Amino acid sequence: MLQEHQKNAGLLLNITGNGKGKSTSAFGITIRALGWGWKVLVLQFVKGDRETGEKRFFSRLADPGLEFDQLGAGASWEPGDHAALALRGWGRAKKELNSMHWDLVVLDELNIALHYRWIPLEEVLEILRNRPSGLNVVVTGRYAPQALLDQSDLVSEIQEIRHPYQKGIPAVRGIDY
Amino acid sequence: MLQEHQKNAGLLLNITGNGKGKSTSAFGITIRALGWGWKVLVLQFVKGDRETGEKRFFSRLADPGLEFDQLGAGASWEPGDHAALALRGWGRAKKELNSMHWDLVVLDELNIALHYRWIPLEEVLEILRNRPSGLNVVVTGRYAPQALLDQSDLVSEIQEIRHPYQKGIPAVRGIDY
Repeated sequence: MLQEHQKNAGLLLNITGNGKGKSTSAFGITIRALGWGWKVLVLQFVKGDRETGEKRFFSRLADPGLEFDQLGAGASWEPGDHAALALRGWGRAKKELNSMHWDLVVLDELNIALHYRWIPLEEVLEILRNRPSGLNVVVTGRYAPQALLDQSDLVSEIQEIRHPYQKGIPAVRGIDY
Repeated sequence: MLQEHQKNAGLLLNITGNGKGKSTSAFGITIRALGWGWKVLVLQFVKGDRETGEKRFFSRLADPGLEFDQLGAGASWEPGDHAALALRGWGRAKKELNSMHWDLVVLDELNIALHYRWIPLEEVLEILRNRPSGLNVVVTGRYAPQALLDQSDLVSEIQEIRHPYQKGIPAVRGIDY
């Protein structure tokens, strides 16, 4: 891990807010990191049932440095055993965060899983605080818990100023999923 | 163009604000669109002199649907013939926007080039307003002109809540470029 940028001690980033761009920003950081030869793990909490462009892209991508997995049951407002899946996903994430294998781990939608208390916040704070040196972590999702933001090196809040659904336009393939 | 999503009439998105995540969000939409087989053109205004993870990644990517080009001279606060390069880049962008070849065109940092009046705003507004049906466009950069936001279908504003440079940590390879 970390061959070309030895000086990075590992940052904790949180991309939150109600606007569009949180997960896509994490995917952008993912390809940026892959461009430098990093090993990147993307774990999507909550999401799971829907075919998405990112899933299709990352599944096809022949980059041995990348692993991409969906751990959830679908949108948080849809039926599904969200709590159990989130907790199981966190069990996986914990092992990966301590594995010394990754340079970047993306925990997409973790904020939401914490907000709904599907995953114990105190444990997440502790695992992230004690993660291996040099491991960068990007957390996304709305409703980030303040304690997690307090612990983060970078926090961006994406505000929705205007969105097509306000005009009744449903989610668009290729843009929204 | 547009085989799998005939119903999308083409959206104009603008990702602005002072926080981290604007360009990476556009790259995330790029890979999402590529996942669905869209033809995507990414034009980076302003940026140009620096080796970046996204450039390395997209250059290596064997996806015939993608074209990626840097049109600028480097960061806007660094020396360089920004105005001339931006205007020449806009000449290229105009042709591409009207070519009927693309499903998605990303105009990274166009907001900045407009803010500094390197590119005529009225012409950009007109070209975007009259672009071919079904063409999605993502514009990024801080200081988006209000008239462009007024014309957009989606506007996200990314606010910087906390950033490592506030603690003196310089830009990190793999995360910031």
